[in-house]
Amino acid sequence: MTHINIGNLNQYFEKEVEINGFVDNIRNLQWVQFVILRDATGKVQVTIEKSEEKNKEMVELINNLPLESTVKITGKVVESPKVKLNGMEIIPTKIEITSTSEELPFNFKDLENVNIDTRFDYRFIDLRNDKNNFMFRVQTAFVRYMREYLYDHDFTEIHTPKLLGAASESGSEVFEVKYFDRKAYLAQSPQFYKQMAMAAGFGKVFEVGPVFRAENSNTSRHATEFTGFDVEFSYINSFHDVMNLHAEMLTYALEKIKEKYGEKIKELYGVEVVVPTLPFPVMRLADVYQELEERYGYKVEEKEKNDLTTEAEKLTYKLAQDKFNHEFMFVIDYPAEKRAFYHMRNEEGVLQGYDLIWKGLEITTGAQREHRYEEICKNAKEKGLGEDVKFYLEFFKYGCPPHGGFGMGVDRLTMLLLNMPSVKETEFLFRGPNRINP
Amino acid sequence: MTHINIGNLNQYFEKEVEINGFVDNIRNLQWVQFVILRDATGKVQVTIEKSEEKNKEMVELINNLPLESTVKITGKVVESPKVKLNGMEIIPTKIEITSTSEELPFNFKDLENVNIDTRFDYRFIDLRNDKNNFMFRVQTAFVRYMREYLYDHDFTEIHTPKLLGAASESGSEVFEVKYFDRKAYLAQSPQFYKQMAMAAGFGKVFEVGPVFRAENSNTSRHATEFTGFDVEFSYINSFHDVMNLHAEMLTYALEKIKEKYGEKIKELYGVEVVVPTLPFPVMRLADVYQELEERYGYKVEEKEKNDLTTEAEKLTYKLAQDKFNHEFMFVIDYPAEKRAFYHMRNEEGVLQGYDLIWKGLEITTGAQREHRYEEICKNAKEKGLGEDVKFYLEFFKYGCPPHGGFGMGVDRLTMLLLNMPSVKETEFLFRGPNRINP
Repeated sequence: MTHINIGNLNQYFEKEVEINGFVDNIRNLQWVQFVILRDATGKVQVTIEKSEEKNKEMVELINNLPLESTVKITGKVVESPKVKLNGMEIIPTKIEITSTSEELPFNFKDLENVNIDTRFDYRFIDLRNDKNNFMFRVQTAFVRYMREYLYDHDFTEIHTPKLLGAASESGSEVFEVKYFDRKAYLAQSPQFYKQMAMAAGFGKVFEVGPVFRAENSNTSRHATEFTGFDVEFSYINSFHDVMNLHAEMLTYALEKIKEKYGEKIKELYGVEVVVPTLPFPVMRLADVYQELEERYGYKVEEKEKNDLTTEAEKLTYKLAQDKFNHEFMFVIDYPAEKRAFYHMRNEEGVLQGYDLIWKGLEITTGAQREHRYEEICKNAKEKGLGEDVKFYLEFFKYGCPPHGGFGMGVDRLTMLLLNMPSVKETEFLFRGPNRINP
Repeated sequence: MTHINIGNLNQYFEKEVEINGFVDNIRNLQWVQFVILRDATGKVQVTIEKSEEKNKEMVELINNLPLESTVKITGKVVESPKVKLNGMEIIPTKIEITSTSEELPFNFKDLENVNIDTRFDYRFIDLRNDKNNFMFRVQTAFVRYMREYLYDHDFTEIHTPKLLGAASESGSEVFEVKYFDRKAYLAQSPQFYKQMAMAAGFGKVFEVGPVFRAENSNTSRHATEFTGFDVEFSYINSFHDVMNLHAEMLTYALEKIKEKYGEKIKELYGVEVVVPTLPFPVMRLADVYQELEERYGYKVEEKEKNDLTTEAEKLTYKLAQDKFNHEFMFVIDYPAEKRAFYHMRNEEGVLQGYDLIWKGLEITTGAQREHRYEEICKNAKEKGLGEDVKFYLEFFKYGCPPHGGFGMGVDRLTMLLLNMPSVKETEFLFRGPNRINP
C-alpha cells in the first residue's frame, strides 16, 4: 500500500506525493485557488497559482468542480507556517477527478437545523460531518482496546448464533423469522451461549456482535438492533471478580483512547477523556438512596427502592463525583426478584451482581451466574420458564464451573464517551420501530 | 485476577497455588490417586498419597467424584520429570467440588463413532474434546491478527445493520423477519453498507459479524448463518491493490498464528502451518484451465470455463504447489457477466477482480467496485434490479472514491487451516436448514 493518509502528510515535507480525498472546500480568488482536500484522517490545503501557464488545465478543472467530488492529486508537500490548516500546503502538478458530486440534499457541516430523518435517509452524507465521521474512529479504538485487554488475559472470542430455535431468556419481545417451513427467533443477547462456552470448558470468552430487541419504544437509549460487547468467564470466587475485571478493562481502554485521541476528542466534542482510578467506587443500593436523600434531598417511595430510578441514575453521577471524584460507580445489593433467573442470589435473596453507572447512565448489569443445576432449575421454574429453556438447563448437568460476566452496548459507550445526544447517532445505521432504511 | 491458567503452571514451581478445572481423569491405585485436571489452557496431574493421614478427606472425596465434575484445588506445584504430563505435579492440600457431573451422554474424547447430531445436540460436551476446544483459540488468533493488520493500516471497524428494509443484492434467498407491522430481511452480507462507508468518507473499513443465507443446501461448505470477515477500502488504483492488501493481511496473520500455536496445531491436527511468501501467485482463469489440462490431463467443456469447477479448484492447489510452491493462488480475468452488478468490469467485460484459492477451495471473491454513478445504474438495470437497490445507487451520486474489497468466512478459514472436515464443525454452533438448536 503506497496510499498516504492526509493525516500523515507532515512526514513528507518537500516530497512528491499522491493524495486522495473529497473536495471539502474551494476558495477561488483572483490570483490563486485554494482547494481543501479531506479524507478520514484530516484535511489539507492545495494551492494553485492561477498565473502559471502550466496550471491552466488544473485551474479550469477546479473552476468547474462541484464540492464533495473526489479527486486524486499529485504534488509536493510544502511547509507553510502561514497556512492555518496544519501549517502546510500541497503544490499540485496533476489533478484527476475520480467522481463528481451532484448538489447535496443538505449541508452536513451544519447539522443543527437539519431534520434527523433527512440526516438518516442520507446517512452516508450525514457521516461526512467531522464529528460523526471521527466518532467511528473513536468507537473502533474503544472496542479495539477492550478486546486487547481481554486477549492479554487469555480470552477466547466466540461468534454465537443469532438465529434461535426457541424464543427464550427474558420477557422483552423477540423478532420472529421465517426459517424454511418453521419459525426461528433473533437472539436478544448471547447470554445463554456464552454460558454454554463455560460448560464447554472455554474458561474465558467474549463476543462483539449484534443483538436484537423487538421493543416498540422510542427513546434516546433504545434501538431494535445494536452492537453488544459481552464477556463471561469461569473460576470466579464471587461477583467481585467480575467487577474487578470489568473496571480494569474499561480503565485500560480509556487510558489508550486518551493517549491516541484525547486531544482530538476535546477539540471536536469538547469532552475531556477521564482515565478512571482503580478500584471503582462501590455502593450498596440502599446506601445510594440514603445518601442521595441526605446530600441532595432526593426522595423516592419505598417501593421504588428495589432499583435505581432514571433520576437516581443521573444523581449517582453527582454522588460519584462529589464523594469519590470518579465518573463510574458500581451499585450492588439489589433484590434478586426482579432480575433474570440465571443470576446468582444469596440465601437472603440478594443479587450476586451489580449495575455499573457511568456519567449517570447504567451501562451494564454484571453478575455471578447460577451454575448449580438444582438451583438454576428451581429459579427457572419460579419464573414459569419451561420447554424453551430446557436446552439451557442441560448446560449445568455435566459439570460447569462457577462463572460470571456482563454485557454492554457499544453504541451507548460511544454516546457517553463523546457526550452525543443519543445512541441513534452513535450507530452506523440506527434501527428503530419506525426506521429500517436505508 | 489472581486466577492461574494450568498452561502457565511452570512459572510457579515450589509455590502454593489455587487452580480450577474439569476432572479429566482419575487413576485410583493402591497407594496413590492421580487426578488429571483440565482447563482451556492445558492439563496437569494432581497426586494424592493415600497413606498420609492429612489426605484422608481428599481421598474420600476423589473416591466419590464423577469425571467431568469441576473442582478448585489448593496445592504446591512440584517439578517431577517422571510425570509424562508436562513433567510436573500438584501436591494438594485442599480440594473443593464446585460442580458435579452426571454420566455423560457420550465419550467426547473419542468422537469417531459418535453420531454428528448427538454431538451437536450436546455441543457443549462435544466442545470439551481437545481438538474442538483448541480450535476456537486458533480461530480467535486468526481473527485477532487479521484485525491487528488492519488496525495498523488505519482501518475503522464498522457494525452494519443485519435487519434490512429491502431484500436485495443477490439472487440467493434471504430470511424474512416479522418487523412490527411490516416485513424486514436479514443481511446476506454487509456489501452495500461497507460501500456506504466509502461514500461516507471512512476511507478503510472492516467488519466481523454474522451473515445469513436462506439456502436450502446441505454441504460441508454451507451454513445458513456464519461469521463473515469483510474488508473495503478507498483510493485504490485497481483491484491489484485489493489483492496485495489481502495477501499481506493473510500472511501477517498466518505468521503470527504459527509463532503462537504452530507446534500445538501440528500436535493436535497434524497440520503444518505454512507462512506464505509474498506476492501470492496470480494466474488468468484461461491459463489455469490450459495448464490443468497440460499438466494433469484435466479437461472441461468450453462452456464451463467461465468459472472454476469444484474439481478445478481442487487441482489448482496442486498447480499452486507444483508451479509456485505455494498454498494460495489468485485467479483473475473472469468474465463479468455472472458476477454481481457492483463489481467493476473493463471495456471487454472482464471482471476487475479475483477469486482467492487456498488449499483447493475458494475462500473469497474480491474486486474493485463500480463507483461511477452512470455505470452502476446501468449494471443494476441490466440485472433487472429496481426499487430494492435504489437506496444503494444513491451512495454514488454525491462523490464516492474508487474502492474495492473482499469478504471471507471465518469458519471456512478455520476449517482449511486446521484441516477440519466441515464448516459445521468449525462453527461454535452450526446452523443449517435442519439444525437450529440448541
